[in-house]
Amino acid sequence: MKNINNLFFDRESPAGRIVRGLAAFGAATAGQLAKSTGLGRSTISAVLSDLRDAGAVLDVEAKTNGQGRPSQLLSLNPASGRCAGVLLGLGEIRIVICDMTHAVLSDVWIPIRRDYTPEEAADQVRESLQTQCAPLGLAIGDLLGVGVAISAPLSYGGRVLNGDILPGWAGVDLAEIFSKRLDCPLHAENESHCGALAEMTWGAAVGESDFVLYKFDLGVGGAIVRDGTVLRGVSGSAAEFGHVVLEPEGRYCRCGNRGCLQTYVGGYYLLRHAEELSGGPVTIEQFIDRAREGRIGYRRLVEDAATKAGWGMGMTATMINPPLFIIAGKLATIGPSFLEPLERSFRRTMLPQPDLPGLQTPRLAVARFLGNDDTVMGAVALVLRQHGRIAEGKTPASL
Amino acid sequence: MKNINNLFFDRESPAGRIVRGLAAFGAATAGQLAKSTGLGRSTISAVLSDLRDAGAVLDVEAKTNGQGRPSQLLSLNPASGRCAGVLLGLGEIRIVICDMTHAVLSDVWIPIRRDYTPEEAADQVRESLQTQCAPLGLAIGDLLGVGVAISAPLSYGGRVLNGDILPGWAGVDLAEIFSKRLDCPLHAENESHCGALAEMTWGAAVGESDFVLYKFDLGVGGAIVRDGTVLRGVSGSAAEFGHVVLEPEGRYCRCGNRGCLQTYVGGYYLLRHAEELSGGPVTIEQFIDRAREGRIGYRRLVEDAATKAGWGMGMTATMINPPLFIIAGKLATIGPSFLEPLERSFRRTMLPQPDLPGLQTPRLAVARFLGNDDTVMGAVALVLRQHGRIAEGKTPASL
Repeated sequence: MKNINNLFFDRESPAGRIVRGLAAFGAATAGQLAKSTGLGRSTISAVLSDLRDAGAVLDVEAKTNGQGRPSQLLSLNPASGRCAGVLLGLGEIRIVICDMTHAVLSDVWIPIRRDYTPEEAADQVRESLQTQCAPLGLAIGDLLGVGVAISAPLSYGGRVLNGDILPGWAGVDLAEIFSKRLDCPLHAENESHCGALAEMTWGAAVGESDFVLYKFDLGVGGAIVRDGTVLRGVSGSAAEFGHVVLEPEGRYCRCGNRGCLQTYVGGYYLLRHAEELSGGPVTIEQFIDRAREGRIGYRRLVEDAATKAGWGMGMTATMINPPLFIIAGKLATIGPSFLEPLERSFRRTMLPQPDLPGLQTPRLAVARFLGNDDTVMGAVALVLRQHGRIAEGKTPASL
Repeated sequence: MKNINNLFFDRESPAGRIVRGLAAFGAATAGQLAKSTGLGRSTISAVLSDLRDAGAVLDVEAKTNGQGRPSQLLSLNPASGRCAGVLLGLGEIRIVICDMTHAVLSDVWIPIRRDYTPEEAADQVRESLQTQCAPLGLAIGDLLGVGVAISAPLSYGGRVLNGDILPGWAGVDLAEIFSKRLDCPLHAENESHCGALAEMTWGAAVGESDFVLYKFDLGVGGAIVRDGTVLRGVSGSAAEFGHVVLEPEGRYCRCGNRGCLQTYVGGYYLLRHAEELSGGPVTIEQFIDRAREGRIGYRRLVEDAATKAGWGMGMTATMINPPLFIIAGKLATIGPSFLEPLERSFRRTMLPQPDLPGLQTPRLAVARFLGNDDTVMGAVALVLRQHGRIAEGKTPASL
């Protein structure tokens, strides 16, 4: 068995495109590869044959649609390459290592002070990655890449664009701080963008090339996916739905503006109201439990928040008119008392659509990942999908 | 000289792609064609040589950047094909015929009752097109296509999605009504989407592959352009910025919702206020003149409208984070008393961007087309860029 590092980083060759296609899918048929790479069937067939001979590609279970000959599913050899995903969260760091079939080989959760510095985070990631790689017979430099998900918009070069969730991190150069400590390719992106990649790869958006994701958690974030690509915008801050201004004279927001959607729906803000109600500290988990129980006080709080959430999504629907909205984040686990008023408000605020036969209109779905698995697995997907590269690392080992 | 009908409609061949590239540009260098078609230089060179021999492509003035050998500009032979653009406006129809170098060969403006029906419009278009084609030695069936711009969102099949501006037209099947009367390929799109195509082809967005256009006129519309394509969304109503809900309990809007941006900024609504001020009917042209003069009463009206306009654009900037906004529509001709409060409000409502060296943020520009030239020329561009096809017409004549 060979490792696939060279092919994985080859932007142009058919073999490189097929290897990256298989990495993104985990397992795929030749037909799916033809569609995703744009290569002809005969080219794909020839390249797959070579990759099979080199031990880099394996035939896995056959896929059948119930009639006709089953299509052969292919995957990369699990041992042909590994990558890591890192979640830099509020008071926590989580690090996952996956193989090329997307199997999780190692998953470590590290509690840390809420005000940890970027340097501390990078040291911690390096130390944990070394410990996690060792039993796999790897060094960090053998990884195809490390993906980092962070609760902030990021510039293309890897600069943190605001300190809304991680106040000390505004302006920090992630590329510099992490590449000093990790000698492999580095990717980094906003956590909601990572969440969209996770939903595309394993969740509610598999096979969807165009959708919008809204994430309602401690903050409010999101992603716009167009033609299978997460849009980043000119500065990197696309889809910062939490900062859409609902009321220009509203409450001050951490971003520096007023009346942002987040100040009505963000968990941070909801918790403050909940603390007034209960006269003591409330965690987001407690908040969700009480909201689910339908406690008085929480009912109206959740309904009003959901109504604002639906308004934000309705405006996005009028602007972008996407086929699908995915609702993610912990608040979605509240269930119908959050989702129903959200949908009512969404339908009332998006441009009314006429009843024409066959006319498609935006539909809503709940994400598969509602904890923080979306974020850390999305960080893995950054590497698998070659999105958000901020540093090259050393030259990968050859095939 | 041959006509290019067959090649123009050939989706796959290199010659078809080059012909459509030249049609979209009007005139282009081989380098520009390589970039826009994705074809290799040698293929382009060989195809251009054949097209030159057939008389379909001409060498025009050479282009120089001041140093080195000038690049040869190429265009289609003007006589190799013609297309038409039709504006279906409020109380007016305008029809333009262009050749393949984008030269306007005929431009007719027809006043008509405000409540004209789709059938009357189609009859009128047919009659005028016949009259306009005759001196060019053409029949309607010889045109490469007719593009129709209409003040409403349209479904992919050519159904009018609302009667916001043209109340009797909601649900109308443009494809059926027009294809009965015009035996050539038909294209149709929302007028603001056409405006964006006009700006991309001849105006403030030449060379820009990603931008957002806001059009402030009697209504408020817009377009989102991504990778050189005007987004249409799942139902066809993408970028209906006029119907973004600023206040869920605001004034009722013609679309069926409340508090839409249009109810604060749309010319229709502003004229009602102006009529209260002056005690008599006011046209949009009078409104603009008085606003430009800075008449008391108009000052605050324009400033408040511009502030709402900037808020809508700020929200779009937070959501999409595009590199460029283009401000179009007659209200933009008011000048600084509209544009300055708009920009202030825009900067205050978009997600604040940090001062990082090299960080790009969305910039504003005023459209080139501020009358209704954008709409009728954009309708021509529908054909040139093969956007919004709703009916095939007869098989085009062969090369």
